[in-house]
Amino acid sequence: MDGLRSLLILAHGSRREASNDEVRGLATAVAARMDGRYDRVGCAFLELAEPDIAAAIEREIEVGCDEIVCLPYFLSAGRHVAEDIPAIIEAARERHPGVRVSLERYLGAQNRLAALIADVVP
Amino acid sequence: MDGLRSLLILAHGSRREASNDEVRGLATAVAARMDGRYDRVGCAFLELAEPDIAAAIEREIEVGCDEIVCLPYFLSAGRHVAEDIPAIIEAARERHPGVRVSLERYLGAQNRLAALIADVVP
Repeated sequence: MDGLRSLLILAHGSRREASNDEVRGLATAVAARMDGRYDRVGCAFLELAEPDIAAAIEREIEVGCDEIVCLPYFLSAGRHVAEDIPAIIEAARERHPGVRVSLERYLGAQNRLAALIADVVP
Repeated sequence: MDGLRSLLILAHGSRREASNDEVRGLATAVAARMDGRYDRVGCAFLELAEPDIAAAIEREIEVGCDEIVCLPYFLSAGRHVAEDIPAIIEAARERHPGVRVSLERYLGAQNRLAALIADVVP
């Protein structure tokens, strides 16, 4: 049987729970636009909020995912994007060699962001 | 004579100059997608980088802009988005009652972000 396919949106996490809820709401909105390409869409946090990234990946595997696509929800390539998140992803790959865990470019590096901004301003 | 119309992308600013340059590059990319709707597209920083927001608004007015649209390049509605930036914008409006300075919703609150994420993942 083929495994499930999961998308995880990776955010920094905040002491303001409202900010974390914004990310959770975004994951729900992304899920609604997936047209069946992903079986599951969720989010995870680098710090200050739950679930953390490693725990979220474990959970996705436990429910039957064999492909997990991770998108860092960050605007710039600081240490978190350049080092911390890749290290967490690499550790998950080593724990689960049969699962494909991929890491996409962070949001701020997505070319379409410029078009989005051009579109949303009046 | 009608005045010019300017878009300012308002970012937090970083000690990493590469992050600030990413924002400057984004402004250039947005400008290329404007189809003449804005005469000028630039960026400004809340802290740690130049120009700051108030200085950028003054500069736009000096070169002849009478409409300045500001888009906060932030992912969540923390204190910077909820309080600091609105206070700077309000002060600019009070200094220049003949100039229209508008403040758009911050990037993370833009509905199209979910569609962008759904589009860019494989």
